Amino acid sequence: MIETPPLVDQCCHGVLRTELGLGTFEAHLGRGEGPPAPGTTFFDTQTGFAVRRWCPPLLGLEPHCQPARYLARRRELGVVEAGRRLLRATGIGTYLVDTGVPGDLTGPPELAAAGAAEAHEIVRLELLAEQVADTSGTVETFLANLAECVHGAAAGAVAFASVGGAHGLALAPEPPDAGEVRGAAARWLAGRRVGDRLTHPVLLRHLVWIAVASGLPLQLHAGTGDPQRYVGEFARATAGLGTDLVLLHGYPYHRQAAYLAGAFPHVYADLGPALVRTGARAATLLAEVLELAPFGKLLFSSGAHGLPELHVVGAQLFREALGRVLGGWVAEGAWSRSDADRVAGLIASGNARRVYGLP
Amino acid sequence: MIETPPLVDQCCHGVLRTELGLGTFEAHLGRGEGPPAPGTTFFDTQTGFAVRRWCPPLLGLEPHCQPARYLARRRELGVVEAGRRLLRATGIGTYLVDTGVPGDLTGPPELAAAGAAEAHEIVRLELLAEQVADTSGTVETFLANLAECVHGAAAGAVAFASVGGAHGLALAPEPPDAGEVRGAAARWLAGRRVGDRLTHPVLLRHLVWIAVASGLPLQLHAGTGDPQRYVGEFARATAGLGTDLVLLHGYPYHRQAAYLAGAFPHVYADLGPALVRTGARAATLLAEVLELAPFGKLLFSSGAHGLPELHVVGAQLFREALGRVLGGWVAEGAWSRSDADRVAGLIASGNARRVYGLP
Amino acid sequence: MIETPPLVDQCCHGVLRTELGLGTFEAHLGRGEGPPAPGTTFFDTQTGFAVRRWCPPLLGLEPHCQPARYLARRRELGVVEAGRRLLRATGIGTYLVDTGVPGDLTGPPELAAAGAAEAHEIVRLELLAEQVADTSGTVETFLANLAECVHGAAAGAVAFASVGGAHGLALAPEPPDAGEVRGAAARWLAGRRVGDRLTHPVLLRHLVWIAVASGLPLQLHAGTGDPQRYVGEFARATAGLGTDLVLLHGYPYHRQAAYLAGAFPHVYADLGPALVRTGARAATLLAEVLELAPFGKLLFSSGAHGLPELHVVGAQLFREALGRVLGGWVAEGAWSRSDADRVAGLIASGNARRVYGLP
Repeated sequence: MIETPPLVDQCCHGVLRTELGLGTFEAHLGRGEGPPAPGTTFFDTQTGFAVRRWCPPLLGLEPHCQPARYLARRRELGVVEAGRRLLRATGIGTYLVDTGVPGDLTGPPELAAAGAAEAHEIVRLELLAEQVADTSGTVETFLANLAECVHGAAAGAVAFASVGGAHGLALAPEPPDAGEVRGAAARWLAGRRVGDRLTHPVLLRHLVWIAVASGLPLQLHAGTGDPQRYVGEFARATAGLGTDLVLLHGYPYHRQAAYLAGAFPHVYADLGPALVRTGARAATLLAEVLELAPFGKLLFSSGAHGLPELHVVGAQLFREALGRVLGGWVAEGAWSRSDADRVAGLIASGNARRVYGLP
Repeated sequence: MIETPPLVDQCCHGVLRTELGLGTFEAHLGRGEGPPAPGTTFFDTQTGFAVRRWCPPLLGLEPHCQPARYLARRRELGVVEAGRRLLRATGIGTYLVDTGVPGDLTGPPELAAAGAAEAHEIVRLELLAEQVADTSGTVETFLANLAECVHGAAAGAVAFASVGGAHGLALAPEPPDAGEVRGAAARWLAGRRVGDRLTHPVLLRHLVWIAVASGLPLQLHAGTGDPQRYVGEFARATAGLGTDLVLLHGYPYHRQAAYLAGAFPHVYADLGPALVRTGARAATLLAEVLELAPFGKLLFSSGAHGLPELHVVGAQLFREALGRVLGGWVAEGAWSRSDADRVAGLIASGNARRVYGLP
Repeated sequence: MIETPPLVDQCCHGVLRTELGLGTFEAHLGRGEGPPAPGTTFFDTQTGFAVRRWCPPLLGLEPHCQPARYLARRRELGVVEAGRRLLRATGIGTYLVDTGVPGDLTGPPELAAAGAAEAHEIVRLELLAEQVADTSGTVETFLANLAECVHGAAAGAVAFASVGGAHGLALAPEPPDAGEVRGAAARWLAGRRVGDRLTHPVLLRHLVWIAVASGLPLQLHAGTGDPQRYVGEFARATAGLGTDLVLLHGYPYHRQAAYLAGAFPHVYADLGPALVRTGARAATLLAEVLELAPFGKLLFSSGAHGLPELHVVGAQLFREALGRVLGGWVAEGAWSRSDADRVAGLIASGNARRVYGLP
């Protein structure tokens, strides 16, 4: 076995505060743009099978028991106690929590308390901009408040995240000029109703570049296309500025994300959601990322959202995959034992501590 | 071993009716735009090696015997008897036969009789349009006959297939308007000689959208590029219309095809030709598709065309790959035994029966 | 074990003539656009670990010893003796040396002598054009000298290589017309200072097409994007002209490169740098390329540049990967033993001997 220190989960979200029925639970296992197809269920996915493997034993049931039985036991314990048992079994010592997703989710302090761990906040840029828009009367106020808010948020957060930025950056990696930004803000604000999401590519780029100026690491959701096409030019444009970029959600372009992490000193690759989504294949996914990513440029995360079961699965799959992949290389003589332990520590915790300045 | 029911081969073609020489046989092992390079042979491919592994024993020879010896034995038995022996050894219980490829091939009833199986027809949209063009005098007649023919064909077929549609849909996923269609039809018919293939992107899109209106499942050859770029927007445009899309021939973008099958309730992914083309690597390919495709969204096929050897290889590689991949996950505790058997049944047969409404 | 004949390294470069400090050595392990990130080192990569695995024993040290200790031993032996020991342990019998990269590197005869092997030259087209530009006064002289020089170089070389060609060919695969070429040459020469690199896409295409006319095999660096997008149309445009194309550096698009090698009789795929860069994963990479590439269309190389350690690692990883992948397929009955030995010989040496007309 490969030993790891307590994990730093460098990108996750809170868990739902309410009791869950089978349908809501199932919905959090899918990642699609709709419900499961007629005659199918999201439990019949690698994520569903991984949850059924790892979580029932933590609540006193046998692995792979039926979903209905698991949900009944979860309700019997109550959402708080079930969450406590699950989170404390993850081996995660530090959660970096992106608070910018909707839903009645626990915030960082609550997640820390439930998991007997530490937690820090990652600020989602788009949500920040939407909140600023809700309270700003004019274009000038909006833009001034936006800059101030991003810089203010930087003081209390460990990182920024942008989910839509890659879309805008693919079209034009450089910062938009002041006139463009004013025009875009005027158009967006004029047509906007409270609660509308920010999707204007010029404003997304503007936001990302304000965040770059803050110096805090920036997590970029690279979408589902080749990150080289989406953020390659942006990586080139931000080289040497002193701000690190962390590419999230690369699968099935994770090898390309790993390539970028090797090509640019300030680019890092995230590991997590690819493992949770591919379940029994997690070891292969980890191995594929380890082909090209320098070992100091790779960061563990669970990407978990809503269900503490997903934090469990993210952490378990990661540790098991590390053991199989690195342990296998040690066994065949390709890596030394001490190198394998050292690299495991970097990916599990050390790289994140260095990049985010954690104690 | 993982047990499977008789397979539903959800996308294949007929077999050649004539005796074959070495050169014609070899040509059916390649997939390229030309003959083998000087000094090379298409037998030196994964497909060639897989045929030499699985087929000689079915005709009484040792595995991996030389191609010339195999062909001699095949001729000795005669094309009918050799085909009968091969097809009956596949374990395929139902063939869905795309009849829209050229060549002197057996049709569905003949394939069913030779293989002691059932067979149903898949209608190739482009061929249908070309046949309509051959017999229609004016643009108006052509377009009226086309709509009528597609709807008529829907009554006797289990699905439609489009090989060129993805090309047109990549440019514009929505249905072309009536004026565009009339203009395109006029230009195509004016320059057309009998036998010319339909490649006009506007007519291809028009055809695909007529087929969508029929409600029958539509098989889309996604080409060799990223299916997300080619059919992602079309999948979004057809969501909720009640017509299922089945993505064919995804390799080497099979992980992206699996992603789309997870993202859209009405999108399915095909498995077959990737296995036949990659031979000894089939288990890995199956495992890669199983990373992201929900288990209810994946369909076996052989993609075989011309040689019954390819039906044999498609089925054997699939069953062996299922046994290794699912059996491996059961052995390491990642999946339960009963889940593995159930998922094997879905991919081998159950999903296809549900999608195509087979008894 | 799978036996291989002495290898033909179909694409490598010379080794540095000077003693190396730790920093210079480390820089040659990275492939990025900058130094290692703060707190990281290029030794913490698959390439770094592979060098530490295979090379210390060749200089009398234990595998995986610390970099500083290895470098000290290397300096103790001297750069000439260390290079001799390393190169003679590669099992490479023939080096094809691309001489078009900058640096104080050994040329083909020197590399041959150090390695007790043969060596032949591959001429880099861009460097040739830059040298012609340095000594040509007018556009007319430049273009005339260019054509003459390429044809002259063909007499003494085994192949041409283009590193920038794919960029230009992606935009337009056909040869530029004479007016375009003259205009581009005029603009480039007017703004050029001695030593400037050739990056003008029209001139790059012009160069590539002159090389195609020579009939010598042309090695194309396909960049880091999908080679089908970059060189697919160029492959179609050059089909049947009698000049072979060898695609280099496909990873992570090596499956797409293998696809092109199967689709076009005159297209070949290179194997090497993908193995050196992915180290402990080399067997998987080899297996992935062997999915679709016909076995007569795949060529070994190390891609090594600057450090003889990279020639060692390229050759060792290749032989080990062959043994594991082909040996594994023999063990499970998928391939016959004699087929495996024959294919190993083709990839190690036979294909390159045929393509480059080596004795």
